Amino acid sequence: MDYVYGPGRNHLFVPGPVNIPEPVLRAMNRNNEDYRSPAVPAMTKILLEDVKKIFKTTTGTTFMIPTTGTGAWESALTNTLSPGDRIVSFLIGQFSLLWIDQQQRLNFKVDVVESEWGQGANLDILASKLAEDTAHTIKAICIVHNETATGVTNNLAQVRRILDEYRHPALFLVDGVSSICALDFRMDEWGVDVALTGSQKALSLPTGIGIVCASPKALEASKTAKSVRVFFDWNDYLKFYKLGTYWPYTPSIQLLYGLRTALDLIFEEGLDNVIARHSRLGKATRLAVEAWGLKNCTQSEEWFSDTVTAVLVPPYIDSTEIVRRAWKRYNLSLGLGLNKIAGKVFRIGHLGNLNELQLLGCLAGVEMVLRDVGYPVKLGSGVAAASAYFQNNTPLIPSRI
Amino acid sequence: MDYVYGPGRNHLFVPGPVNIPEPVLRAMNRNNEDYRSPAVPAMTKILLEDVKKIFKTTTGTTFMIPTTGTGAWESALTNTLSPGDRIVSFLIGQFSLLWIDQQQRLNFKVDVVESEWGQGANLDILASKLAEDTAHTIKAICIVHNETATGVTNNLAQVRRILDEYRHPALFLVDGVSSICALDFRMDEWGVDVALTGSQKALSLPTGIGIVCASPKALEASKTAKSVRVFFDWNDYLKFYKLGTYWPYTPSIQLLYGLRTALDLIFEEGLDNVIARHSRLGKATRLAVEAWGLKNCTQSEEWFSDTVTAVLVPPYIDSTEIVRRAWKRYNLSLGLGLNKIAGKVFRIGHLGNLNELQLLGCLAGVEMVLRDVGYPVKLGSGVAAASAYFQNNTPLIPSRI
Amino acid sequence: MDYVYGPGRNHLFVPGPVNIPEPVLRAMNRNNEDYRSPAVPAMTKILLEDVKKIFKTTTGTTFMIPTTGTGAWESALTNTLSPGDRIVSFLIGQFSLLWIDQQQRLNFKVDVVESEWGQGANLDILASKLAEDTAHTIKAICIVHNETATGVTNNLAQVRRILDEYRHPALFLVDGVSSICALDFRMDEWGVDVALTGSQKALSLPTGIGIVCASPKALEASKTAKSVRVFFDWNDYLKFYKLGTYWPYTPSIQLLYGLRTALDLIFEEGLDNVIARHSRLGKATRLAVEAWGLKNCTQSEEWFSDTVTAVLVPPYIDSTEIVRRAWKRYNLSLGLGLNKIAGKVFRIGHLGNLNELQLLGCLAGVEMVLRDVGYPVKLGSGVAAASAYFQNNTPLIPSRI
Amino acid sequence: MDYVYGPGRNHLFVPGPVNIPEPVLRAMNRNNEDYRSPAVPAMTKILLEDVKKIFKTTTGTTFMIPTTGTGAWESALTNTLSPGDRIVSFLIGQFSLLWIDQQQRLNFKVDVVESEWGQGANLDILASKLAEDTAHTIKAICIVHNETATGVTNNLAQVRRILDEYRHPALFLVDGVSSICALDFRMDEWGVDVALTGSQKALSLPTGIGIVCASPKALEASKTAKSVRVFFDWNDYLKFYKLGTYWPYTPSIQLLYGLRTALDLIFEEGLDNVIARHSRLGKATRLAVEAWGLKNCTQSEEWFSDTVTAVLVPPYIDSTEIVRRAWKRYNLSLGLGLNKIAGKVFRIGHLGNLNELQLLGCLAGVEMVLRDVGYPVKLGSGVAAASAYFQNNTPLIPSRI
Repeated sequence: MDYVYGPGRNHLFVPGPVNIPEPVLRAMNRNNEDYRSPAVPAMTKILLEDVKKIFKTTTGTTFMIPTTGTGAWESALTNTLSPGDRIVSFLIGQFSLLWIDQQQRLNFKVDVVESEWGQGANLDILASKLAEDTAHTIKAICIVHNETATGVTNNLAQVRRILDEYRHPALFLVDGVSSICALDFRMDEWGVDVALTGSQKALSLPTGIGIVCASPKALEASKTAKSVRVFFDWNDYLKFYKLGTYWPYTPSIQLLYGLRTALDLIFEEGLDNVIARHSRLGKATRLAVEAWGLKNCTQSEEWFSDTVTAVLVPPYIDSTEIVRRAWKRYNLSLGLGLNKIAGKVFRIGHLGNLNELQLLGCLAGVEMVLRDVGYPVKLGSGVAAASAYFQNNTPLIPSRI
Repeated sequence: MDYVYGPGRNHLFVPGPVNIPEPVLRAMNRNNEDYRSPAVPAMTKILLEDVKKIFKTTTGTTFMIPTTGTGAWESALTNTLSPGDRIVSFLIGQFSLLWIDQQQRLNFKVDVVESEWGQGANLDILASKLAEDTAHTIKAICIVHNETATGVTNNLAQVRRILDEYRHPALFLVDGVSSICALDFRMDEWGVDVALTGSQKALSLPTGIGIVCASPKALEASKTAKSVRVFFDWNDYLKFYKLGTYWPYTPSIQLLYGLRTALDLIFEEGLDNVIARHSRLGKATRLAVEAWGLKNCTQSEEWFSDTVTAVLVPPYIDSTEIVRRAWKRYNLSLGLGLNKIAGKVFRIGHLGNLNELQLLGCLAGVEMVLRDVGYPVKLGSGVAAASAYFQNNTPLIPSRI
Repeated sequence: MDYVYGPGRNHLFVPGPVNIPEPVLRAMNRNNEDYRSPAVPAMTKILLEDVKKIFKTTTGTTFMIPTTGTGAWESALTNTLSPGDRIVSFLIGQFSLLWIDQQQRLNFKVDVVESEWGQGANLDILASKLAEDTAHTIKAICIVHNETATGVTNNLAQVRRILDEYRHPALFLVDGVSSICALDFRMDEWGVDVALTGSQKALSLPTGIGIVCASPKALEASKTAKSVRVFFDWNDYLKFYKLGTYWPYTPSIQLLYGLRTALDLIFEEGLDNVIARHSRLGKATRLAVEAWGLKNCTQSEEWFSDTVTAVLVPPYIDSTEIVRRAWKRYNLSLGLGLNKIAGKVFRIGHLGNLNELQLLGCLAGVEMVLRDVGYPVKLGSGVAAASAYFQNNTPLIPSRI
Repeated sequence: MDYVYGPGRNHLFVPGPVNIPEPVLRAMNRNNEDYRSPAVPAMTKILLEDVKKIFKTTTGTTFMIPTTGTGAWESALTNTLSPGDRIVSFLIGQFSLLWIDQQQRLNFKVDVVESEWGQGANLDILASKLAEDTAHTIKAICIVHNETATGVTNNLAQVRRILDEYRHPALFLVDGVSSICALDFRMDEWGVDVALTGSQKALSLPTGIGIVCASPKALEASKTAKSVRVFFDWNDYLKFYKLGTYWPYTPSIQLLYGLRTALDLIFEEGLDNVIARHSRLGKATRLAVEAWGLKNCTQSEEWFSDTVTAVLVPPYIDSTEIVRRAWKRYNLSLGLGLNKIAGKVFRIGHLGNLNELQLLGCLAGVEMVLRDVGYPVKLGSGVAAASAYFQNNTPLIPSRI
């Protein structure tokens, strides 16, 4: 028995790990298998092709590494760069900060471009840096597509435009951990060189696969990249791809079958419908926040995130208490504020396998918690705003028409 | 892949089968076992004792029959009565109607006491019948504790008082299918002779166990009852209880382990807390219905049900369309109106392993559906009413304090 | 934690309930669903058609009743016969005895044709009874296809030939609990009127569905059969079949999905291949018994069962001790001897989702247990005999060629 | 449906990933959870203590890293050593070879001490190297406890004795991937500085946790070790241990609950009983190999492995064909010969949650496959030898006495 058991479902609204669909749980409910039998490589081969679709790439090469998003970061960096390489990286929240910390510890020379938390990457500075860098000393641009700590989505198409404008050959490395499979992401169109995500985010699986996708240019870079790597070395994978056995070391059988089903569900719904659903969920959440009279941590509409909303609380309230109380009283799991916005925001994750009524239940819960902690929200106000939007914009479930 | 797949959770608010808690799903996720090994009888013995607690009996004898509620009805009747026996039975909705149909087909002579659907059992007529029956020709009183079709809870304590008043020896048989483990039920205190429920109701298991509890008086009656029975014969069970092997035929191993966990969860929460939670859920639902400006099918407060609410819709709306649309657009499963109230009511089941935020998500969904079908509900109004109640009345989850 | 936990797999070789395939466990690992939604009837409709295939019938009507084999028996009898009807029934072991007991308690007039346990049904007596019965007072022949207690398979084709020879209109009712989906069974070709099985036998599901198939003649008989029945009444099902909602009461959602997968697995393997596999398993088991110098309880080859083998032990050994020790020392579950052969036989069930190496592990275990209890078996002897047969007769797994 | 479906259980006898116990599968059958709630850290804290027991350490510090054995290797090396450090490493088979490859790519200066495959580590050379190294240029000894490719178990106590004899301060790093939880391993007693295993080996979980245990001396070394590391950095874990939140990045919720249950099962059986069971399984396998007239790849009894047996086949047989055929015909998964012994050996993994009858089924299968490929084995001979041993040495299952 769980020692923190509460009746009914846990309402899981942290921005990861997210709710796993029942069909995926079923698919993973299995014994181990010999990963050297013909079955596992055959499945792996198809998976490696199919995961390309969530990156919107046909030219990329995919790696499904038994690791987390942090490991996927490391894989992206060490396979393409050499110690001392200069990179430009944007600090806009806790996760970009952690990535930059990793970049520095891996001995890259990082130009940190900092924004106020709640703002997106300062691309003007990027432009000026690239403009100055006629010698092409900048080897890579590292950017999170969606900063999970603040609910800020960066404009990747704009990054590409700037790179093109200055005809700069820097690699374009993207953390898509809280975006891919939820936000519009176009690897090939945007000329992204390495993109990565984690299985426990919008793919709605357990933690355990860091999915990395490398462009031909990134693969080429990996041939000369001098960063030390073994576990994360793409080359070990590529060797086994050629052999047709696919795995340099033991994969999780359960996660492979889970990924198979997760992709099947996404393809059945349609990736663009999945993205549209996230857009609905994000919009509805923001309408609720507005109705509550609270501020979104994200300072401008251009950066609004459809996967996570960080909500600023009035100064007299400790947002940590909101998260604590939500869990203790309503079995609702919300995201904490992190680092410099600890206590100041709470976060609603609205990504992954989630639908409108689940979100409305969460919003109703947040309203009660807000009152619990002394904020005079009008109960039902956020739900009303969100459901008005949903009622006008939610399509029938295609399989049920 | 399910061919009616929709993203996110299904919101299951029919009044049975209900949501199964994850720990119960886990417990049932197992291979078959030899039910003649020492393990299964040992577990069965304890289960037979523990299920008594949900009936609030210490003197009863329990039977866990591999059947549904309909089979449990048949077991209650055929083990205690003989063809031609006169019984009094109350017709107040579709399920009491079906039980009466069964009683008649089993060749009992049924005094049907009919109420308008939406009203409870007419106990005045019971009193007058008992008053007249000085010869004790009435062998049993059959009553549903909670009529699932209309959301009407009968007053069982009052039935006992009437029986006692007339010192009438009739057996007191209770259908507790949508009440036991959710509503206050007191077998011993109320002198109930046979009570029964089904695993897929408030116990929150899959369908498959009809749980029947017999008082000593009922057991005594079974010795002379002449109704033909084999599969449902208590005596076959009693024989195997004595042998210590417990099963006259093969039980579902999975359901036994599931029941073990379901009871553990109920006992951990505390049966009285479970009942209080249902009371909160019922009250909140009724407040929402009121806020929507709709009528409860239940005509008087004395009969309000804390496990299911049947909501009357305006004459210009077909409630079937509400149920259909809820499922097709919002992945929300509501109960249909049945028989003479088909098209006129939809039902919200709020029983079993369910918490406040789940219900609020449902209520928000109902609001949207109501607008979809042309009823001018104010979005958020029901949620506001319900959550105001919840915010004042929901305790902290004890395991998390 | 199970309080009888032992490391490794339980080796389940009782003749039911049997091993559940992993894909079936996965399919059943799910929450409840509204059985009145469009999804469940749609699935039910196809299932009712597909289960016909395991009976080899195109003209039969199928019922999937939430009950056990005992309930399926009752359904077969009460829907086709009236109290006082004369039937011929064969007593050849514990399960045919229990069915006869049921027949008598249901008030039929049973001509019991008894054979020594270990022999098949005495069809000569059937012939003479039919010959004498020119007035057609015999309304039904009731026979188990496979007597699970003794491992005896009756010759149903011969029963049909005898009925035809005497142009006797008696209904032909067959208990196929331990045969259907494992032994060759041909409902239409053999003119069987009612056949039935249980989900926990060769279908390899949990207990909980009694599957009954009725010929047009049986359906016709049900219109005039006067046996009292409600829960088991086919007519209630037929009514809901016509409505397209299919269920007179709540089915187990989990078992429906489990049955879907179980049938998919059987059809993928091919029903005839399934039967051939059981034939291999049965033959191999008998070769092992012979190699051990022990006798098969089945007295003649014509009755050998391919689903269960009852093994006679020498008089100085108590077979109950064999079963007990197998479970306590080797995590091996064998079948007990029942009733008059208690202590004299143990049983090896070799039906359901089972392969050659599983059986060889069992046989190796039986050898060790035999030595444990003092029988001087040559270790490896039975395994050698069985594997010699398997090595010559096992085909490659088609999906892996 | 699996496209390589075969009826019955897959017989999984590769030396990893291994069979997962049903209770562990059940424990992992769950949705994701917020790993920042109070529940997950509380569970983690206890797990970190409990996993120490499988290392037999009280002074070690444990890390449960979301990675594989290969990642655990990298963690052990990079946290304790600096580029250019001299280490002594033993090449005795494919897995020690891969570790050495990693050591070299991580820029350590490796003294490779090679043995013939089938022999253990040459500890005489270790002794002479240590004797010579009065300047203590050797920073670490790296050794696999059990070489999975050849079935060779090294004598770790002897390594410690040699280190002590020369009072050499080198770190003692042990790959326990195919030993810990199956073979006798004593971290504290043997003065091991870093030991590691993977969840999919004797712990009988899915792949996904690299478990690393560091002695105080190793932790001290980590403070000055200059190898670049981020994802694998112990310091990030230690920081979060201090905070009481325990996780620098997202763990697999499912694997944590799975590990909890896996440890519970091991502790219920008793770690020493688990080791004794592996000893029985190993001994029985070797007796079977001998009875078949085949040679163990392991050249001397001192190195016999109780977790995996590599069997040499006659030169006229391709062992790859044995593995292929076992899978295609008997649903039996055996281990291939790797690298220089490819085609020459097949491997029987006998580790993890496995019992006697499972192994006997495997051995019976191997016998049939051997005949299939033309080796004139006497069927039943290996099973007889193994079961004679088992019958004399298998204890009753304690929970069933």
